[in-house]
Formats: sequence, structure tokens, C-alpha cells
Amino acid sequence: MIRLVANIILVSFFGLFAVACQETEQRNAHKNTASVSGFDVTLQSAKNKINAQIALPLTIPTPKDAGGGYTHEKHKENAKLIYDAGQLFKLTGEQKFTDYAGKLMTAYADVYPGWGLHPAKKEQSPGRMFWQNLNESWWLLHVAQGYGAVKDVLSVEQRSKIETDVLRNMAEFLSDGSPETFNKVHNHGTWATAAVGLTGYAIGDDDYVQQALLGLDKTGDAGFLKQMDKLFSPDGYYNEGPYYQRFALMPFVVFAQAVEQINPEQKIFEQRDGILQKAIYTTIQQSYGGLFFPINDAIKDKGIATTELLYGVAIAYGLTGDKGLLSIAEAQDKFVLTPESRAVATDLAAGMAEPFDYKTMRLRDGENGTEGALDIIRASRDPDDLTLVVKNTSQGLGHGHFDKLGFLFYDAGHEIIRDYGAARFLNVEAKYGGHYLAENNTFAKQTIAHNALVVDEASHFDGVTETGNKHAPKLGVFANNDDLKITTAEIDTAYADASLSRTMAMVRDAAFPNPLIIDLMKAQSNTPHKYDLPFYYNGQLTETNFELKAYTKTRKPLGADNGYQYLWEVGQAKAVAGLTQVTWLLDRTFYTVTSSVPEATDIIFAEVGANDPNFNLRREPAFILRSNSANGVSLASVIETHGEYNPIVEFTVDSHPNVAVVHHFDAGANDYIRVQTKDGQTVGLAIASDTSQAANHSITVDGTEVAWTGPYKLFHSQKHIEEGK
Amino acid sequence: MIRLVANIILVSFFGLFAVACQETEQRNAHKNTASVSGFDVTLQSAKNKINAQIALPLTIPTPKDAGGGYTHEKHKENAKLIYDAGQLFKLTGEQKFTDYAGKLMTAYADVYPGWGLHPAKKEQSPGRMFWQNLNESWWLLHVAQGYGAVKDVLSVEQRSKIETDVLRNMAEFLSDGSPETFNKVHNHGTWATAAVGLTGYAIGDDDYVQQALLGLDKTGDAGFLKQMDKLFSPDGYYNEGPYYQRFALMPFVVFAQAVEQINPEQKIFEQRDGILQKAIYTTIQQSYGGLFFPINDAIKDKGIATTELLYGVAIAYGLTGDKGLLSIAEAQDKFVLTPESRAVATDLAAGMAEPFDYKTMRLRDGENGTEGALDIIRASRDPDDLTLVVKNTSQGLGHGHFDKLGFLFYDAGHEIIRDYGAARFLNVEAKYGGHYLAENNTFAKQTIAHNALVVDEASHFDGVTETGNKHAPKLGVFANNDDLKITTAEIDTAYADASLSRTMAMVRDAAFPNPLIIDLMKAQSNTPHKYDLPFYYNGQLTETNFELKAYTKTRKPLGADNGYQYLWEVGQAKAVAGLTQVTWLLDRTFYTVTSSVPEATDIIFAEVGANDPNFNLRREPAFILRSNSANGVSLASVIETHGEYNPIVEFTVDSHPNVAVVHHFDAGANDYIRVQTKDGQTVGLAIASDTSQAANHSITVDGTEVAWTGPYKLFHSQKHIEEGK
Repeated sequence: MIRLVANIILVSFFGLFAVACQETEQRNAHKNTASVSGFDVTLQSAKNKINAQIALPLTIPTPKDAGGGYTHEKHKENAKLIYDAGQLFKLTGEQKFTDYAGKLMTAYADVYPGWGLHPAKKEQSPGRMFWQNLNESWWLLHVAQGYGAVKDVLSVEQRSKIETDVLRNMAEFLSDGSPETFNKVHNHGTWATAAVGLTGYAIGDDDYVQQALLGLDKTGDAGFLKQMDKLFSPDGYYNEGPYYQRFALMPFVVFAQAVEQINPEQKIFEQRDGILQKAIYTTIQQSYGGLFFPINDAIKDKGIATTELLYGVAIAYGLTGDKGLLSIAEAQDKFVLTPESRAVATDLAAGMAEPFDYKTMRLRDGENGTEGALDIIRASRDPDDLTLVVKNTSQGLGHGHFDKLGFLFYDAGHEIIRDYGAARFLNVEAKYGGHYLAENNTFAKQTIAHNALVVDEASHFDGVTETGNKHAPKLGVFANNDDLKITTAEIDTAYADASLSRTMAMVRDAAFPNPLIIDLMKAQSNTPHKYDLPFYYNGQLTETNFELKAYTKTRKPLGADNGYQYLWEVGQAKAVAGLTQVTWLLDRTFYTVTSSVPEATDIIFAEVGANDPNFNLRREPAFILRSNSANGVSLASVIETHGEYNPIVEFTVDSHPNVAVVHHFDAGANDYIRVQTKDGQTVGLAIASDTSQAANHSITVDGTEVAWTGPYKLFHSQKHIEEGK
Repeated sequence: MIRLVANIILVSFFGLFAVACQETEQRNAHKNTASVSGFDVTLQSAKNKINAQIALPLTIPTPKDAGGGYTHEKHKENAKLIYDAGQLFKLTGEQKFTDYAGKLMTAYADVYPGWGLHPAKKEQSPGRMFWQNLNESWWLLHVAQGYGAVKDVLSVEQRSKIETDVLRNMAEFLSDGSPETFNKVHNHGTWATAAVGLTGYAIGDDDYVQQALLGLDKTGDAGFLKQMDKLFSPDGYYNEGPYYQRFALMPFVVFAQAVEQINPEQKIFEQRDGILQKAIYTTIQQSYGGLFFPINDAIKDKGIATTELLYGVAIAYGLTGDKGLLSIAEAQDKFVLTPESRAVATDLAAGMAEPFDYKTMRLRDGENGTEGALDIIRASRDPDDLTLVVKNTSQGLGHGHFDKLGFLFYDAGHEIIRDYGAARFLNVEAKYGGHYLAENNTFAKQTIAHNALVVDEASHFDGVTETGNKHAPKLGVFANNDDLKITTAEIDTAYADASLSRTMAMVRDAAFPNPLIIDLMKAQSNTPHKYDLPFYYNGQLTETNFELKAYTKTRKPLGADNGYQYLWEVGQAKAVAGLTQVTWLLDRTFYTVTSSVPEATDIIFAEVGANDPNFNLRREPAFILRSNSANGVSLASVIETHGEYNPIVEFTVDSHPNVAVVHHFDAGANDYIRVQTKDGQTVGLAIASDTSQAANHSITVDGTEVAWTGPYKLFHSQKHIEEGK
């Protein structure tokens, strides 16, 4: 049973805190005259904003617009004002902030009880102030905190009115009034439980806190604690992916922090081996160049500077003191009005930041870590260095895409082989009211929209989310050595009679100045199928080893269904002697994919944008390796990063690939990929499907037997060996 | 007659200089332990590079490859090594640099005389070491300076061999051997004269200096001084545009500096009212967000950080002491091995930088400033603020595009309505050897590839450069006031029987949070024509005021010739009651073009990329206003910058335009454009073709007479007036 904190304790907490902060602020005012910390900027900016608002009449519009519309944005703004006014009161003790917050909440109390469901209500879970109750939870989470900060200086009448007509009214709408959301193990559920729980703390109603933590019936079958157990994997991976992870994180960390302060006996941050802290870290790890990996339904602009992670990083720093988090805060370059954020700003200004430890890591998916994994392979801890992400995760519920064993490849701060992300213009009314566009389901989620193998032009699991939710890839080896980082996974449920496996590796060898990516995509089947493997390359095509026939006078869609209808077919070619080679230029670097393919392979060049009457899709190019086969297919590719195009100093070097040919030797359970360079070097990668470290394997490569022990072995070039690397 | 400097003077100059620099360096070594200046980094990096090379065998490959190929890049690298070794000797006095430069030049002397014309020689003006003699000039300009720096410590034999077999051999190939280039008033000519002139100074042969300054026959009809008179306008504009201006600048400033030091009586930097200094400044002014305006044949990545401007800014700073140049140096963040560059780095490190004064300005074109102008209109001196560039210049010789009265529009650091620039991948061998691509002539130069009016699907001057070179626009008013910046120009020679005029203005009014662009494009003709006005918008279309019919199942090229064959027709629509409105989103901002057009106007949506078998073109979208008319056309457009899309903090405001309707009232010589907003405000712009400041004008607007004095008047909104702005 969780102890309810009496109002008097809350009062002390907030009161003392305000004083402490004021003193700290004054000290800092002297100390930091030269270098104002980022927090001071945030504080001043919040003060200016509230001061400007105090002079204006309150505006509480009657709900009307969908996401992005005026009434939607205005209510969000008001919640932020109430929250900020509360925080400013705590930080400065100035009465005017309390007065303003009280006035604004009272004004809401005048109208909120009279509002029925929102006129632009969303398909599921409508709100009253907003089109969906998710936004209502967001509002209450902020306002409850604002109320908690100022309640003790409000009049009894104001408190009674605000508690009854706004806080309880809304909390009950979100809990008993919306059980399907509140009890759901889903981020919408966490927003609801956190909002109701924080309301409980703010108004001193333990019943709300209990419902929040343990579900409506308080049995623990639902609620916040259950969500903590279920929504993150043991490695802190959130099964919808990082875009939703950062969103889900906010109510988890904000409510958990309140629990930690008011009910420390819960040891909330120690639960599940520190799962919330892990979740904050994995959110950061799932980013490149500051932006989240755009797997599943993701808006690509979102990254570590997102508001949720301002809270998250500040809280994690308070828990760990990890100075690597300060460099994340430096990249964020923004702060929030919390004491934790202030501490981060102060230490950052004191020059204490260290580089964040971006890692090569396998993030297991699923409640028990048994439903696949997101595999992240980095050339170094530099967030802009060459990085490979392999999506061996589970489906990821309703926001999941059908891209089993798909990958993303980054270099030099750019997406090089990319994922489309979501088809959505967040909050842009003219684009289907800011909702996910129809093309999100019909294109962006489909397998052909990803760097993943498509069989017979059908998406994985026939594009049925429920089926996808039932099946995750089976993980093979994951290893992180200096010269070889490698991941393997397979799945036999994506298609009825084809089993897929993919091994991807990052290899360092002296024959190449940059790490190579080696990719072995295999499908096993006893029946004839058409196999399409897309590479959504980003950049300008410079050369190919085949004659490319472009459709220069007319274009038609590549197919009719499953996302193919959104691709223009822009060119076609035939592989040359079982080899395809495609080079493109992006910014200052050249990239080449060299693939060993079946003799009769076609290469299709495509571009997103067919069947797009509303110009909803971005025009992005791809090439697709297409093979028809009666007994499965193997496609062994090498991705080479090479050369430099420098239009500033006007030189270009190594614009041609150094890879001459790639061979794949296949002995069923054992594979060997041989990469030969133009200057006569050879690099080999042996792979065994047997993951035992002790097992011995061999394979015949051009008449010579190659032997190794364990699931993989890298055979370096002569040059590498001679240089003693 | 110019006095020849004896070797002994050169010796003293370089010798003293080396000592002075060493002392300065040592002083700085103590002073700058904490903050190393950028120059020190450059110096150390150059030392490391040469030291590494000293240990390696020399490599002088026999000429073989075109631009970007191995032998091309290697010879460029060797020239840089000789130059750097020379500068390092001057800066440090260390003998090893002299030895290295001497050895490398001697090795060239062994082979250069035996080289005939380059096997990959370019269409015109081939070189021997390089595919074109322009590169040969570049090489000699660097090597002559390197030789001059070290010659006094070389043996007599080495000097004789290098002077005879490299310097004279090459100088004569570039002068007497290539008279058509050497005597040409063109940047290739300047490179040749500067290279030969610097050779003259280095080896003490006045004949070379005279030829360089006065042309092969030394009459002054050609040569460097003539080039100074002819190649820049009185405002310092170079008629090929900024991309070639920065390239042309290098030999001008480097040779001029040598002339200033050795023949100060020439007062070279005072010639033509300080034309070389003006040219450096205008090169910087012709940039946005650090990149040059990509008018004419321009590679878009090129900007103020280009090597030529490292020399240029350093020299200009030496001449002017303008601290605004230090902020350009800061943005460049690179230095060269000259005393001027060192001075810049030192002052920059001392915190002396001030913002560069980016200006609204009319840069007159032509030797006498009578051949049109480049009009630059900026909202502020911030290099990333809203900026309009109107191309009212002359043709610009062989690198000119057929885009009379075309424009470019920038905001928030981005191209918003953009110019394609050149179709070229500089030095990328796989792309036509790094030359200008065929599509440069057939697409990029054509009028339809620009934001310029096309009549009857034909390019200006029928796409004939020689015709274009004969005609420049007639300039109208140019004014730069706080609330109204305006430019007008007209041309009646671009088409046989249609005369074009365009007025573009940047307007500030309280009815709009951002400046508006008002654009009045008129064509006068007495015969029926088809008029196409393209807007190459950059971003994602969000909404239109018309029903857009997209070609979703098939695409065909928009036309057959004059660049139209490279445009896919992707959609079509009809104007609604003489109004078209197109909104798009780029990064965080929305942009809307609202146009008053003839009733029967079509809107064509197009995309670059048809008839492009080698994937040479970038896929960029445009919409085109198309009107058929028997008696000319008027298209009055307003470009509105509005709203904010913020996916980080997740809000979107003002995604819809505030402009409701645009009306154009036309009384022949007088025009009035009325902009009405959704919230009932009206802004008007009156324009008279009579440029007299004193003339009175009037026009009837919806039955009311509007009167003004002078060539233009802005009529502010009621809101603006009430707010007393």
C-alpha cells in the first residue's frame, strides 16, 4: 500500500524548494555574470513570456479545431503557461505567477464541465478539449503540476472550483470515463495514468494515485507499474521504436520522479534493474546526428533535442552524474524549468561535459527480451560516424512497419541508405488535418518502402499488423570486435513458404580506408517466387557496371498494390555476369553497393511519387534487385564508402569504387563472401549458421578449403596482414 | 614603362620577410598558448604535409587523365606542394623546404619539355600537363611563386634548368604559344597573364611582366590592365556572375599584389577607383548563407570559403582594415600561408571581428556599368535573412544563362524559389569527365529552367549566346527604403515581338509579420503568344486554391525542345477567378505565392528529370503559370513567408496564407497591386514607368482614384497606420 502524502508535506516541499532555488539563483547571478547558463536564458524567457501574458485578456476558445488548428494550439499553450507559472513561482516566489495560474485555471473551470466530446474527434479515443484524449492527458499532466506548485497560495474557493471542475472532472474523464485507454499497455495509457497520478498528488487524493499505479481496479493488472514492466524490453527498448519511445518517456519519467519524491519507498527508479534510466539512455543511443532512427511511424525531424528528452536527460543526470549526458544537453541547447535541468546547465557551463558514449549494441525487444532486437553498429562513438542499424525487432504494434530484417545506413551526418519514416505532416492542417496520411498505411508501412526483402510483391505478414505482432525474428549472433561487428537474424513467418535470413557486418581492413558493410540476404523456399530487394539510396547516381535503360519519355507505376503503386519505374537494367554495382554521390562522399546476384537478376530504378494526387510523398529514389527463382535466393552485397568530392577546393578523388567483384560461396549452413579489390586485395567473411563458439566449419572457395571455428571469421587482406594491423 | 626589379631586391624582400615572420611566430608561440590562431593550425598542417612528402619518392605522372582523374589531381597537388614549400621557407627559413621544392621543380624540368598536347585535351585551349591550358596557368601561378621564394638558395644549375625547362617553357606555351587565350578579355586570359607575369617577377624577366600587363604586343590592347578595365563593371561585378568572379579574382589579386610590392608606382590597387577591392567585396555580397548566388554556370556548393576568397579577404583586409571582413574570415574558418592571412587570423583571434555589412544593392553590369545590373534586396544584414536577387544583368558570355529578369528568393538560410545552377559534377570522371554536361546547354541554360518568363516555349534570344551578348536589360528604378525596396527592369530584345518588364519589391507592413515580395511581370505584344512563368519552389506542396489534377498513373515530358523536354508534367489545374495560390513547406516555414492572372490561366506542375537517361539532373519541382493571350500578359504575384512548423516542440501555426486576394490594376504606364488579407487589411503598391521623382501619377482602383508622386509608392495597411509604424 502506498502512503498518501498530506498536503502539508507537499507544501513544505515546494516552499522549501522555492527558497533554495532563489538562493542558488542569487549566488549564480554573481558567479555567472560572464557566462550566463542556458538555464538562466530559459528562466528569463519564461518570465518574459508570462509577464507579457499577464497583461493580456485570457483566451479559452471553445474546442473546434483538429491537431495543429487554432483551438488545439491555444489550449496547449495555456497548459504550458499554467505549468511555467507554477515553476516560476517555485523558482522565484513571486505572487504574480500564482495569481496568473490561478486565474487561468479558474477560467477553465468555468467552461470545461460544459464541453462534450470534441467536434473534430479522432477515430478512436476522442477528447473534449482536444480531438483525442491523448492531448487531454498531456494537458492534465502539465496543469496538475502547475496546480501543485501554486495551490497553497490560492483561495479555498479557487482551489475547490479548480479541483472539482477541471482537475477531477478531467481526471475522471481520463480514468473511469476512458477505461480502454487508461488500462491499456500503450503510451496513451501511460500518459493517462501519469496525468491522473500527478493529479492525485496535486490534490491529495490517493485514490487517483492508486488507480494510476495499479489500474482502475487497483489490482496491478493494469496501470503505470504494469506499463513499466511491459512497455520496455529489459534493455530499455520500446517496441514502437525511438520516435514513440521519446514520447512515451515523458509521462514515465515525470510521474516516476513525483513517485520517487513523495513515495520513495516505491524505489521506482530501481524497478526492473533501473528500467526507466535504461529507457532514457536507449532513446539517446537510437539517434544519428542528433535525430532518431526513423523506424516505424516516425517524423524524421525529431531527435534528442525533443522536449521529452530535456526532462529525461536532466532526470538521468540527477540519477547517474554521467558527464556524457552533459554533451547531449549541449547538443540539445535547451533547458526546462526544473531543478534537475538547472543542475545540468550549471555543470555544462562549468565545462564538465564529456563525449556521450554512443555504442555498438543489440537492444533486445519484447517484455522479456525475446522478441527480436534492434541492432546498432557504429564505427566509433562519434554520433556522425558511419553507422548501420538493422531492424530485427518485433512488429511494434499499430505504428510498426512491415520491414523485417531491413536496415538503415548512415555516414558523415547523413542518411545514405534510408527509411522513409512516416507519411505525415505533423499538425499541418492542410495535410489531412495533421493526421497520418492515407499513404502511411498504403505506402510507408509496406515492405517495398524499406530496405527489406519483398517476396512476390507482397508485404511481410500480408501487411496485417495483428499477424506481425505475433511473430518476431529469431536472433543469431551479435558480435562487436574492432575489425568485425556482425549481426544475424532470421524469420520464417513473414511469408507462408519462404524463410528469410540476413547477416550484416561492419568490417575494417587496410585494403579500404573506410569500414565496409557486408550484407548477406538469403531467402529459402522450395517454390518459385519473385524476390525484390530495395536500396533507397540518397544522392545522385554517378555510375553503374551495367547499361541502364531509363524510361525517359514516359513513366508508369511499378506495380498495383502493397506500396508498389507509389513507385515510378524510372529505369531498368540486367546484372552483368551475376554482378551489379551502383555508385552515387552524396554531399562530399561516394557510395557504392556491389552485389553478387543470380545471373538473371534485373535492376529496377524507382522513385517514390506515383499515385500521389495530393503531393503527399517525398520524391526519393531507390534501386531494386529483382530475381525470380524456384529455390530461394542469396544476395551478397558490399557497401563501400569512398572518395571525396570537394567543390570548395576543387578536387575529386576515388570517385570510382575499389571493390572489383563480390563472390558468394554457399554451402547451406556455411557461407563465405569474398570481396576482391581493383588493386588485387581480397577480404573474406565466413559465416556459419551454427552459433556455437567452439564448432569447426569449412567451406570450399574456388577449390580451396577455408576453415574456421565459431559462427563467423573475418579473413583480412594481404595488405592488412603486411601492415601488421 | 615598368621598372624591372633586380634579383637582389626580390632576395631582400623574401629574406627579410622570412626573418620577420619567424620572430612574429615565436612571439605568438608564447602569447597564444591558450588560443592557437587559425593560421597556426594552417601552418602546422602545411609543415606536416610537406614533412610527410619529403620522406616519399617524387611522383610526376605522364599526363593522361581529364579533370578529376589521377594525373590531373597529382599535378595540382605537386604545384601546391611547391607553393607551400616556398611559403614555409619564407615563414621558417628552414632549408629542407627549399630542398624539397627544388627537387620537385627539377623533376618537372626533366619531363615537361617532352610533353606534347594532353591526350584528353579539352575542346578548346588544350594544355600539356592538363587537359586545358587554364589548369596549366593555375599550375604556373603557384609554381612561379614557389620558385620566387626559394630560388636564391638553389644552385645555379638547378635555377637554370628549372627556369629553362619548366618556367620559361610553360610561360611561352601560355603566352606566345596560346595567343587566343592570353590576349583574351576573359578569366582564362587573366590566369594566363598573371601566371606569366609572376614568372617574369620570379625569374627576373621584364619581358614577361610587360606582356602580362600589356598583352603579347605590349600595346595595352590586351593583357592584365585591359582585363582589369574590361572584366569588372564600375561596381565590381563580373559579367559571368559570382561563381566565375571568385575564380577570376584569384589571379587578379595575387598578381596585383606582386605588382604593388615590386612596382608600387603602378598604384595597381587604386586603378579604376579601387576596382580590385570592389571586386572582392561584391564577390562576398553575392552570397547567401555563405554560398554564392548560383546564377549562370555555377556549382552550388561554392561559396565564401573558397580558396580564392581566402586570399581575397586577406588582401582586402590588408588594404582596408574593415573588421567586417574578419567575420567573413571566421565563417571561412580557413587560412592560407601568406602574411596577410596571418594578420587576419591574429586579429580574429583577438576578438576584433564585426558583422559583415551585407547590403541591399544594385550591382551595375558591363565595362561602363551600362549593361543591366544584378539587384540584391535583403531584409537585413544577416546573411541568412530573407533575400531577393533579380537577374537584370547582361548575358554573361559563354557561361551565361538565358534568364532575363529572372529571380531567386531565399529565406531562413535556404533557397526557397531557386535557380538550377549548372548541370555539372565538377571533376567527377563518371559524369562526362567532370565537364559541363550536355544538359547544361540543353536544360540548365534555357529560360524554362529559370524563374523567368518564357514566350512560346522558346528561350530568350532563341538560346543564342552571341545574340544575348549584344543586349542587356534597360534598368528602371532601384530604391532601398525601410519599408520598400524595389527594382524595375525591362528588355525588348529577348523576343522578336514581345517586350518584357518586371518590377520586384520587398515590402514591410504590420499586416504581415515577415516582409512580402511583390512581383509584377509584364509582357507587351500585339500578336498572340503563349506565356509561361515558372516558379521553382523548394519544398513540399501543402495546399492550393485550385483543384489540382495530378498525372498519377503516367507521366510525359512537358515539351519537346528548349529545355521543356527535361520537365515531367506532373499535374495541371485552372486558375480560380483569375487567382492562383500555391503553398509549400520547407524546413520550419511555409511559403505562398498568390498571383493575379488572366482568367484562363493554367497552372502546370512540373519536375525536372524527363529525357535524362544518365540521371544527370536533380529532381526539382516547379509550378508554371501559363496564359495564352493576343495582347500581352500581366502576372502580379505576392510571395508570403508565413507560419512555423515545429516538429521538435510539436506545434504548427499559420500554415495557411494570410493573403486572401491579389488584384492588379493596369493603366498602361501606371500599375497598382492591391494585396488583401483574410483579416481585412489592404496593402497597395503603385508603380509608374516614368522614373522621374517629381512626376505626379494616378490610377483608378475599384472606382477610387489613387494618386502619388514619383516612380512608386507603398500604401500601408490600416493596421500599420494605427500602430504608428
